[in-house]
Amino acid sequence: MKKIGIIMGSDSDLPIVQKAVDTLKAFDIPYEVHIFSAHRTPVEARNFSVNARESGFGAIICAAGMAAHLAGAIAANTTIPVVGIPIASGGLGGMDALLSTVQMPSGIPVATVAVNGAVNAALLCIQMLSLEDKELADKLDAKRKADAEAILTKDVTIASQL
Amino acid sequence: MKKIGIIMGSDSDLPIVQKAVDTLKAFDIPYEVHIFSAHRTPVEARNFSVNARESGFGAIICAAGMAAHLAGAIAANTTIPVVGIPIASGGLGGMDALLSTVQMPSGIPVATVAVNGAVNAALLCIQMLSLEDKELADKLDAKRKADAEAILTKDVTIASQL
Amino acid sequence: MKKIGIIMGSDSDLPIVQKAVDTLKAFDIPYEVHIFSAHRTPVEARNFSVNARESGFGAIICAAGMAAHLAGAIAANTTIPVVGIPIASGGLGGMDALLSTVQMPSGIPVATVAVNGAVNAALLCIQMLSLEDKELADKLDAKRKADAEAILTKDVTIASQL
Amino acid sequence: MKKIGIIMGSDSDLPIVQKAVDTLKAFDIPYEVHIFSAHRTPVEARNFSVNARESGFGAIICAAGMAAHLAGAIAANTTIPVVGIPIASGGLGGMDALLSTVQMPSGIPVATVAVNGAVNAALLCIQMLSLEDKELADKLDAKRKADAEAILTKDVTIASQL
Amino acid sequence: MKKIGIIMGSDSDLPIVQKAVDTLKAFDIPYEVHIFSAHRTPVEARNFSVNARESGFGAIICAAGMAAHLAGAIAANTTIPVVGIPIASGGLGGMDALLSTVQMPSGIPVATVAVNGAVNAALLCIQMLSLEDKELADKLDAKRKADAEAILTKDVTIASQL
Amino acid sequence: MKKIGIIMGSDSDLPIVQKAVDTLKAFDIPYEVHIFSAHRTPVEARNFSVNARESGFGAIICAAGMAAHLAGAIAANTTIPVVGIPIASGGLGGMDALLSTVQMPSGIPVATVAVNGAVNAALLCIQMLSLEDKELADKLDAKRKADAEAILTKDVTIASQL
Amino acid sequence: MKKIGIIMGSDSDLPIVQKAVDTLKAFDIPYEVHIFSAHRTPVEARNFSVNARESGFGAIICAAGMAAHLAGAIAANTTIPVVGIPIASGGLGGMDALLSTVQMPSGIPVATVAVNGAVNAALLCIQMLSLEDKELADKLDAKRKADAEAILTKDVTIASQL
Amino acid sequence: MKKIGIIMGSDSDLPIVQKAVDTLKAFDIPYEVHIFSAHRTPVEARNFSVNARESGFGAIICAAGMAAHLAGAIAANTTIPVVGIPIASGGLGGMDALLSTVQMPSGIPVATVAVNGAVNAALLCIQMLSLEDKELADKLDAKRKADAEAILTKDVTIASQL
Repeated sequence: MKKIGIIMGSDSDLPIVQKAVDTLKAFDIPYEVHIFSAHRTPVEARNFSVNARESGFGAIICAAGMAAHLAGAIAANTTIPVVGIPIASGGLGGMDALLSTVQMPSGIPVATVAVNGAVNAALLCIQMLSLEDKELADKLDAKRKADAEAILTKDVTIASQL
Repeated sequence: MKKIGIIMGSDSDLPIVQKAVDTLKAFDIPYEVHIFSAHRTPVEARNFSVNARESGFGAIICAAGMAAHLAGAIAANTTIPVVGIPIASGGLGGMDALLSTVQMPSGIPVATVAVNGAVNAALLCIQMLSLEDKELADKLDAKRKADAEAILTKDVTIASQL
Repeated sequence: MKKIGIIMGSDSDLPIVQKAVDTLKAFDIPYEVHIFSAHRTPVEARNFSVNARESGFGAIICAAGMAAHLAGAIAANTTIPVVGIPIASGGLGGMDALLSTVQMPSGIPVATVAVNGAVNAALLCIQMLSLEDKELADKLDAKRKADAEAILTKDVTIASQL
Repeated sequence: MKKIGIIMGSDSDLPIVQKAVDTLKAFDIPYEVHIFSAHRTPVEARNFSVNARESGFGAIICAAGMAAHLAGAIAANTTIPVVGIPIASGGLGGMDALLSTVQMPSGIPVATVAVNGAVNAALLCIQMLSLEDKELADKLDAKRKADAEAILTKDVTIASQL
Repeated sequence: MKKIGIIMGSDSDLPIVQKAVDTLKAFDIPYEVHIFSAHRTPVEARNFSVNARESGFGAIICAAGMAAHLAGAIAANTTIPVVGIPIASGGLGGMDALLSTVQMPSGIPVATVAVNGAVNAALLCIQMLSLEDKELADKLDAKRKADAEAILTKDVTIASQL
Repeated sequence: MKKIGIIMGSDSDLPIVQKAVDTLKAFDIPYEVHIFSAHRTPVEARNFSVNARESGFGAIICAAGMAAHLAGAIAANTTIPVVGIPIASGGLGGMDALLSTVQMPSGIPVATVAVNGAVNAALLCIQMLSLEDKELADKLDAKRKADAEAILTKDVTIASQL
Repeated sequence: MKKIGIIMGSDSDLPIVQKAVDTLKAFDIPYEVHIFSAHRTPVEARNFSVNARESGFGAIICAAGMAAHLAGAIAANTTIPVVGIPIASGGLGGMDALLSTVQMPSGIPVATVAVNGAVNAALLCIQMLSLEDKELADKLDAKRKADAEAILTKDVTIASQL
Repeated sequence: MKKIGIIMGSDSDLPIVQKAVDTLKAFDIPYEVHIFSAHRTPVEARNFSVNARESGFGAIICAAGMAAHLAGAIAANTTIPVVGIPIASGGLGGMDALLSTVQMPSGIPVATVAVNGAVNAALLCIQMLSLEDKELADKLDAKRKADAEAILTKDVTIASQL
């Protein structure tokens, strides 16, 4: 099975990124985690991404805050899908990271998820892998059902809590 | 090869969506285009998405403006990747559509591209399909090279235009 | 008397929604509370709303955060009034939920109140019911008077607190 | 049948408000249109709203731009539902009118629709009236069906236009 | 000497408004404080403002949050200067109150100060009164000098703190 | 009678500022117009403002766009009231000029009006002058009445235009 | 004298960038113009910036729109100053480019100027070069004087135009 | 070697500004720190900046919040480079200070860094000084390498922390 790369721009992003890792683990998806900065370690970031497809990666998740260039910089060097997680930091609430991640110019897409949306970043990668993996597709369906049932269970008891 | 679904919320989105269609055509990707509204034709939108995987779709592109629920509504009913294009309309410059598309709750990802970013929506889908299609991966690489060369050609002559 | 439906997208919305419930209780309005997600339990959300009018509901209050599609998804399946409460969460201060709730396309209205404005959501429903219920209209007038008197009582003593 | 009041803050709002009038006409709803300004004709605005319920109004639509106080000022003097249409004007794209209309304090709700959302303002009022009017409810259902069919008709031909 | 009226929309605004009161006291300016709500006590708010000039007021400071209509509602009923203090509350950081206060339509000005800018609201009123009061003008100059000296005193020692 | 100073940061602001001039003329208020830039002619801006009170000015209107420092720079050098008009220019719709004008630090107030709100800037100055000028107060009342009547005249005929 | 590099991300930025070129020409500053994209020609962008100091560049101006990574990508590979011009495009008015350019993480500065602020980008570079070039400093002073005189000349005649 | 001036608008900015001082110290750059306010001590701010070049300053860092005019006011009086640090304060998250600092009119540039970006403000000044100082350029390169190595060291161990 293809691996998912996970890159964070700074180790301060770890608490958010952990949720992506946990999600991949729950689906038994192989992954590889790195701390690379688009600006402070551009060579390593580039080397990782240039070789990502032939190294067996199926997608790369990039988490970064502020002028979040990481996802775009990785996407510039590979044609496997890159998923961007804008990280909220400082007073602008993540709006800076969101716009820096999503507003990519034509030709170099970044699949952007919500601010701090690490679980969805992982799920999106799993969905991509599921296109050729019936078992994974079934697991995704099962998780959807479980998520729905968790809500419906709460729905049964909510009236008594008010 | 898997097909790409393209859904727009209104035929006023057609001039933007056309660019996604053109991109898919340039890569010889089969596609199917629909006008469905998350709000005005919820049944048809649901039916399309519930059956999308078994109908042979590999990803679904959804373009919508304002409180752009289309991508989320489609994503709620399938576990194949859904790509959202926020469409700019009215005075808010597409910020309403961007936030409505990208800020999805945990569990239901939408791969969001830039406001009006239809070319990238198509490219993102092609990148997904390329994971198991060496020829497509090569075509993506070729397009990247061509895009780069187009810029570098302009770079040669820019000085003389100033 | 018609019932008011109250749906929240997640039980984390309960502290806000409680204020809507309390307001309905204070007016002796029958209500029914649910946790349904537009994305995670779309079938149940749909079933509830498709039947809402014939089930005796007079309006439905929907509370959701982020890309808040709940009110719009419910409104798509019923022609009784739907009131949306955008819930603030994360760094964007509720702006994402506000725009996702209020910027509905033509044809499917959502009566949107302030971010976290649960009391007003309930009052708006009561105002609708009061159109055919003189007693309820009188209660609303009485509450207005009481609210005004509470302020005027404070006005009397404010000078001494400075 | 109860009447719908329509108040605009300035005759420059007329092109937007016209769509609300047309929608009410299409449903044969009696209405009364006024130009009142919360700031420039506060007495007339107040007099209208204080007497609105006993004058036979079922709801009041208020359209205003900039620091759009009209809906709130009307709502302060009546307990029938007030629907606010934020009007876009100037460089802020209607964000000023939206926040001024929707962010009402607890106790005085304004049912806010999208920026320039005049059709939905009218539909929302009709939905309220439909609670006690089976024929109106049927007409709303019929319009929903017609709207859906219009989209589905376009859906049939969209593929040939690309 | 003319009095300054100070109106707050809610007693939760008191900690901010206190700074305006303290500033007026420091200049020995007579003042009168009220809690009036544009929406919950519109009659009292109106009565106060209609009579403000003949009651001896020289300006009215209005502090309110969210869809802050108070300053505009007061300004609609008097032609003495009205100064608006937008109060920050909730997740939007006071942007809602700022736009609701400052974006007044032509004809009814509100002199708006910064979000939570109560000291400046008071100083602005004192500046107005100083136009015909040499002693007050001198006091304002003295405060400016004192403020400057306080900064310059800090400037002398700042280097040693680093 | 005291004069009103009007300063614009650039002659491109003239079409907006003209409306302030016209309003002052309509009230027979003496005025003096200048083009000074806080940044490009800081000495002249300073000299004007340092001497403004003794030169007989009662207030100074400052109009500027982008990082609109003009009003603040003038206010730093005088204790007569300074009124700021944020001018919209470029893609940010005047939000840059609004925040640069209104968010003044404690000690140096700027009475800010709406983006491009030149008429209100002039009226605000006239209101200040009216505190000691009964005739001016009467003229302001008369304009209010005329403005109201203009609206009420339109109100009479609006129904026939729909 | 050191050269100034000017890089634009796309030839659609040329009308804005032309103003930077014109400013450099007016000061007889040697410059070199390129079209490089951080995303589409990352290798060329990198090669240019890695060698910029030894190639005799004193600063590099980068102009880009949307998720404007160009300035940051260049800055990541050189320690000579990099000046970023956010280019406005699309509905977000340049806010996306501004935040993507200015919100750089600690360690890699980008000297950001106003949205579309090409003249100032050039002037900033000239100011840097002037630190060791008395003649250039004198030219900058002369331009400042000329700019001021141009305003003061307009100031003389403005009154007659109103 | 030229000195770097550091000016903060208020001593409440000291915790942020300290990081700029620490960075300059680490590079053995002479500096001079001041507290000057563009509004409260305009004369001292002006005197400092008018003489800055001949006093041996190579650049001036200005830190201010809200309607942050300090950098612009300093830049108006000197042609050495001025670097602006927008300081976050209050509910607007620093957006007010950012726009007030960066959106300078043509002719008077301010090199703006990120909100609270004090380290980068210092580095930018050091980069300017490095243009004529090989040793400083080498130190900057060394810091870049050290920063990169710090990240790469973390990269080695990150996998074991998940």
